[in-house]
Amino acid sequence: VKGDLSVVIDVLRATSVITTLINFGCKKIIPVRTVEEALNIKEKNPEYILAGERNSKKVEGFDYGNSPLEYDSKLKGKTVIFTTTNGTKSIIQSRNASLVIIASLLNVNAIIDKINKSTFKKVNIVCSGSNGQISIEDIYCAGMIVSYVNGNLSEKSLLASALYLHYKHSPEKILSEVSSHGRKLVHSGLADDIVFCAKMNLYDNIPYYRNGVIQELRQ
Amino acid sequence: VKGDLSVVIDVLRATSVITTLINFGCKKIIPVRTVEEALNIKEKNPEYILAGERNSKKVEGFDYGNSPLEYDSKLKGKTVIFTTTNGTKSIIQSRNASLVIIASLLNVNAIIDKINKSTFKKVNIVCSGSNGQISIEDIYCAGMIVSYVNGNLSEKSLLASALYLHYKHSPEKILSEVSSHGRKLVHSGLADDIVFCAKMNLYDNIPYYRNGVIQELRQ
Repeated sequence: VKGDLSVVIDVLRATSVITTLINFGCKKIIPVRTVEEALNIKEKNPEYILAGERNSKKVEGFDYGNSPLEYDSKLKGKTVIFTTTNGTKSIIQSRNASLVIIASLLNVNAIIDKINKSTFKKVNIVCSGSNGQISIEDIYCAGMIVSYVNGNLSEKSLLASALYLHYKHSPEKILSEVSSHGRKLVHSGLADDIVFCAKMNLYDNIPYYRNGVIQELRQ
Repeated sequence: VKGDLSVVIDVLRATSVITTLINFGCKKIIPVRTVEEALNIKEKNPEYILAGERNSKKVEGFDYGNSPLEYDSKLKGKTVIFTTTNGTKSIIQSRNASLVIIASLLNVNAIIDKINKSTFKKVNIVCSGSNGQISIEDIYCAGMIVSYVNGNLSEKSLLASALYLHYKHSPEKILSEVSSHGRKLVHSGLADDIVFCAKMNLYDNIPYYRNGVIQELRQ
């Protein structure tokens, strides 16, 4: 029993994209803060793929945006440089934890299992939110996690748990109606992304972040 | 439709005390930030009553502490100088709102009625919390209010509402078990205070704060 585990969540859509990339056999994801940093890495590694968004749209000149629906088995074995407004920042900021794992609704049961089998002294759940504001879809995912893990919960965790239990059977409603970020995405024609990101336990991989790189955690 | 309404909540125990004082016919409550300020006002007005807490205990030399159970009809017509760690600060900080009203579980339906009959452009609910941390009992009270008022809710309000709806029939559980501040009070021998503060709608008064003074709002 030692060290701390950080679980980073950005359901709409960074951590959903990461879980999807890992599912399709993507070898490495390099999360970066800025577009400039992404382009610098690309210059030195022309075979890498550029992915990410600003204002919910694919960055000009990038290969992919921030929609999990863009990705498929073409990503197998590839390295992706990834930058988004909130999610990739939260991942990078969590780097001092003993272990950083990436959660979305797509892999939430795998995350719960991992936490329950681990012996960390403390588990931090990092809800990325949206430009400094809370994002209710991230709190919903956190609430599902804390509802099924053993151990003492903080008051914030109990609040998240109550949210999850109240909307237990309506993840799509949380993402597309309750979430203001979700409503914006629907308004921008991205309703299919929401439907996809609301699927619970489509995958069972656990992406983890270490030394600047996200890869699949082999158990 | 203009101006903004602030609803200040500190269920354990400042706003529960204020609602109780108003119920017993207390004429005025003067919330102040510091013990020194309270003593200065007392010096100029020896007939005023000193009330408040530090570390959950009655301030040395004060007439009353921060337990609603200390108060009765002896307070009728009196002026009380009141200072607590979190609640009175939240009230004073809300002073720039068009109207500041004081809520606790004891008068929550009266507050809901007032909001639904009013035409403010914006309603802010201020959960006092405990030394910079959230207090789940304040969010529970806020959640009851937002669950029954008309209008658009922020994501924080929706989160509070989910908490209230999940624990709807267990206010005592929220205050005495889920709340860490509540558990501390129980541990300090103040379990009776919790039972009292968990009574919903014991009173129907609405205390309001203006020009430095809390009085009963006459409708």
